[in-house]
Amino acid sequence: MTQKDPYLLTPGPLTTSLSVKEAMLHDWGSWDGEFNRLTGEVCERLLRVAGGEGSHVCVPMQGSGTFAVEATLGTLIPPASTTLVLMNGAYGQRIGKILDTLGRPYLAINKGDYHPPRGEDVARVLADKPEIEQVVVVHCETSSGILNPIEEIADVCREAGKRLIIDSMSAFGAVPVNVAELPCAALVSSANKCFEGVPGFGFAIVERELLAASAGQCHSLSLDLHAQWQYMEKTGQWRFTPPTHVVAAFLQAMCEHEAEGGVAGRLARYRRNRDRLVAGLREIGFQTLLADEWLSPIITTFLSPDSPNFEFSRFYDAIKARGFLIYPGKLTVADSFRVGCIGQLHDEQIDAVVSAISDACQELGLSVPVPAPAAAPDNLEHA
Amino acid sequence: MTQKDPYLLTPGPLTTSLSVKEAMLHDWGSWDGEFNRLTGEVCERLLRVAGGEGSHVCVPMQGSGTFAVEATLGTLIPPASTTLVLMNGAYGQRIGKILDTLGRPYLAINKGDYHPPRGEDVARVLADKPEIEQVVVVHCETSSGILNPIEEIADVCREAGKRLIIDSMSAFGAVPVNVAELPCAALVSSANKCFEGVPGFGFAIVERELLAASAGQCHSLSLDLHAQWQYMEKTGQWRFTPPTHVVAAFLQAMCEHEAEGGVAGRLARYRRNRDRLVAGLREIGFQTLLADEWLSPIITTFLSPDSPNFEFSRFYDAIKARGFLIYPGKLTVADSFRVGCIGQLHDEQIDAVVSAISDACQELGLSVPVPAPAAAPDNLEHA
Repeated sequence: MTQKDPYLLTPGPLTTSLSVKEAMLHDWGSWDGEFNRLTGEVCERLLRVAGGEGSHVCVPMQGSGTFAVEATLGTLIPPASTTLVLMNGAYGQRIGKILDTLGRPYLAINKGDYHPPRGEDVARVLADKPEIEQVVVVHCETSSGILNPIEEIADVCREAGKRLIIDSMSAFGAVPVNVAELPCAALVSSANKCFEGVPGFGFAIVERELLAASAGQCHSLSLDLHAQWQYMEKTGQWRFTPPTHVVAAFLQAMCEHEAEGGVAGRLARYRRNRDRLVAGLREIGFQTLLADEWLSPIITTFLSPDSPNFEFSRFYDAIKARGFLIYPGKLTVADSFRVGCIGQLHDEQIDAVVSAISDACQELGLSVPVPAPAAAPDNLEHA
Repeated sequence: MTQKDPYLLTPGPLTTSLSVKEAMLHDWGSWDGEFNRLTGEVCERLLRVAGGEGSHVCVPMQGSGTFAVEATLGTLIPPASTTLVLMNGAYGQRIGKILDTLGRPYLAINKGDYHPPRGEDVARVLADKPEIEQVVVVHCETSSGILNPIEEIADVCREAGKRLIIDSMSAFGAVPVNVAELPCAALVSSANKCFEGVPGFGFAIVERELLAASAGQCHSLSLDLHAQWQYMEKTGQWRFTPPTHVVAAFLQAMCEHEAEGGVAGRLARYRRNRDRLVAGLREIGFQTLLADEWLSPIITTFLSPDSPNFEFSRFYDAIKARGFLIYPGKLTVADSFRVGCIGQLHDEQIDAVVSAISDACQELGLSVPVPAPAAAPDNLEHA
C-alpha cells in the first residue's frame, strides 16, 4: 500500500508508519494470554521510558487523552482536596472544566493564551494558599505550541511538599522526563502522540503508593484508574473491552520508537523538523508567535498573513490540495495557524510543506509580511 | 495476508473480515472534512438500522461499550430520578454498579443467573413504585447467552408511561429492533459486536427531545453524551480525539452488514451458526444451559463436562491449539463454558470448532455425559 493519504502536520492523530497500521491486520481475544502479553509489554515499556520503574505503575485507559486525564484527576484527587491548575491555553482550561464537572475545588493561575506559568508564580500561590495539595500543569500546551517549564515547577512543588500532576499528552515520548527524579505523582499521555501510535487509548504513569491509596475515589465506573489497575494486576486484562487493534499498533510503534533511539532519537528528529519548518516559513515571511526559547518540538504557531484576502478555510484547502493537512489556530489574541512536527515526517515532507504553503500563498494572492523580530523571551516572562 | 489468527468464538472482540481491518491502513485528520463525512455516515446508517430516523439521534462515544452505557445513564437520568434495573447476569449488575457510582437511586429486579425478566415482573414493580421514571434492561445478557424479551417489557413501560433504556451491546445489528415503534428512549451498543467492527467506541441511539433536555446532567466531562452531540451538530467532529482508524473500519463493517442483507441477513447467518453449533455439541453429549426458546443467536452457554478431569484452562488451551478461542462461563450456579456465533464465522468454522471441542475432550480424557433434556421454558418462566 503506497502513501496516498495527506500528511498530517498536527498534534495528533498523526501520520503513522505503514508497519504500525499493519499491526492492526489481526484480531485478538481481549481476555487471551497473547493479548495480555501485549498489554503487559506496553505498560513495562512506558514505565521504562518515564523512569518510573521502581516507584510508579502504568495504567492504560480507553478513549481519548482527555478520558485519561479525567480518569487520573477523578481517581487521585480526594473530593475535598484543593488543586492548583496552571493554565496557558485550551488544555489547561480543560483541566479546570474537568474539576468543575467533578465538583472538586481548585484555584487557577491563568497566563492567558501563550505565556508560560513560571516556578515563581507557583511558589507565590502555594505560599499564600496552604490548602492546595496538588498542582496540575500541561507539559506542551498545543494551543500555542509552548513547552512549559515543568522542571522549575516541579522544584517548587517538591520544596512545598505538593504533588505534581503533568498532562504530557503531546510531549511524552519526545521530551525527556523522569517521573521519579522530577518528581511527579502522575504523568498522563496518549497513544497517538510522540510514540506515533493510532488513537484509541491514553495512559497514566502514577506513583504506586498514591494509586493504592485512591480506591473508591473516582466519580465514574469506566474511568476508575484504581479499579483498572487492580483488575490488570489480578488478571492481566483490561477491566472493560480494550481497543485491541490500537494496542497492537501501539506496541509496534513503541518498538519503532526504541529503534529510532528512544526519546533522544525522536527529539532529535522533531527538533530538526521544527527548525527546518520555522526557518523555511520565516524565509517566506511568516512569524512565529513565540520566541525560539519557547518553541516546542511538537507544534508551532505562526501568525496568519496580514492580508484582507486571508481566510483560514481557503488556505487550509489550498495546502490540503498539495497533500498536507495543517491545523487551525486556537488563540484569542491573534489570528494564527499551527503546523506540527510530529509523526512520520522527515526532511522531505517538511521541505514539501514549506513549498506547499508558499504556493498556496501565491495561489490565493496572500502577501506575507516581512518578518518582524519574534517576541523576546523577556516579554513573555514578565507578561 | 492469510487468516492465521485463531477464530474468536466469543461475544466480542470477534473475528472481523480482512477488508474491515484493511480500512485501518490509512491515517485521518480527526478535524478534517473527509473524516467528518465518515462519522456522519456511520451515525446515519446506525439510525436507519435502529428505525429512529424521525425521532432519535445517534451519538458515538469513545471507549468500550460500558463507557457508552455509563455516558447514556449519566447524561439522560436526572440526579434524583429513580430507575428500575432488570438484572439477570453480569451486565445487568454492571448497570446497577454504574448507578451506585453515580449516586443515582434505583431499584432492581434480580432474576439471578439466567432467568429472563418478564413483562409481568416489571408491571408489578412499576405499579408498586410510582417514583420509577425509567427502566433499564440488557437485550442479550451474554453471561448466560439469554435473549431477554424486550418487546413485552417495552409494552409494559409504554402503558405505564416510563422510559425504556436498552443495553443492546451484543444484539443490535443482528436482532431486529425499532426504537420508534418499541418505543425505547435510548439503545446503546458498540462497534465490535454484531456489526463486526473492531473495538474502540460505542454509541447511543437516543430520543432527540430527551437528549436535548439533558444538558448539564452528566457526572463526567468526557462521557457527556449531550455535549458530544451538540459539538458534533455544530462542527461535524467528535468532541475529543476519536479512534479514527476504528471508525473507518466500522464504516466498512456497516457496508458489509448491508451487503449481507442487513439485520435480517446477519440474523439468518448467526442463527444458522447457533443451530449448527448446538446440534453438533449436543450430538457429542453437551447440554445447553437454556431451553431452545431462550437461546440467543449471539452466544450459547454449555454445561461443562461432569468429569473430575475437567479444568477450563486446559480445555481452553486444547481448543486454542486447534485454532479457536472459546469463552469461559460466568455462572454462579453451574460450571459452564460459552461459545459465540457472531463475527466472521460460517459453516466451515462452526463444524471445525465442534470437531476441535470433540478432539479436545478425547485428548483430555473428558467423558461428556449423555445429554439430559434441556430445561423446559416453563421452568424458566416460573422461576
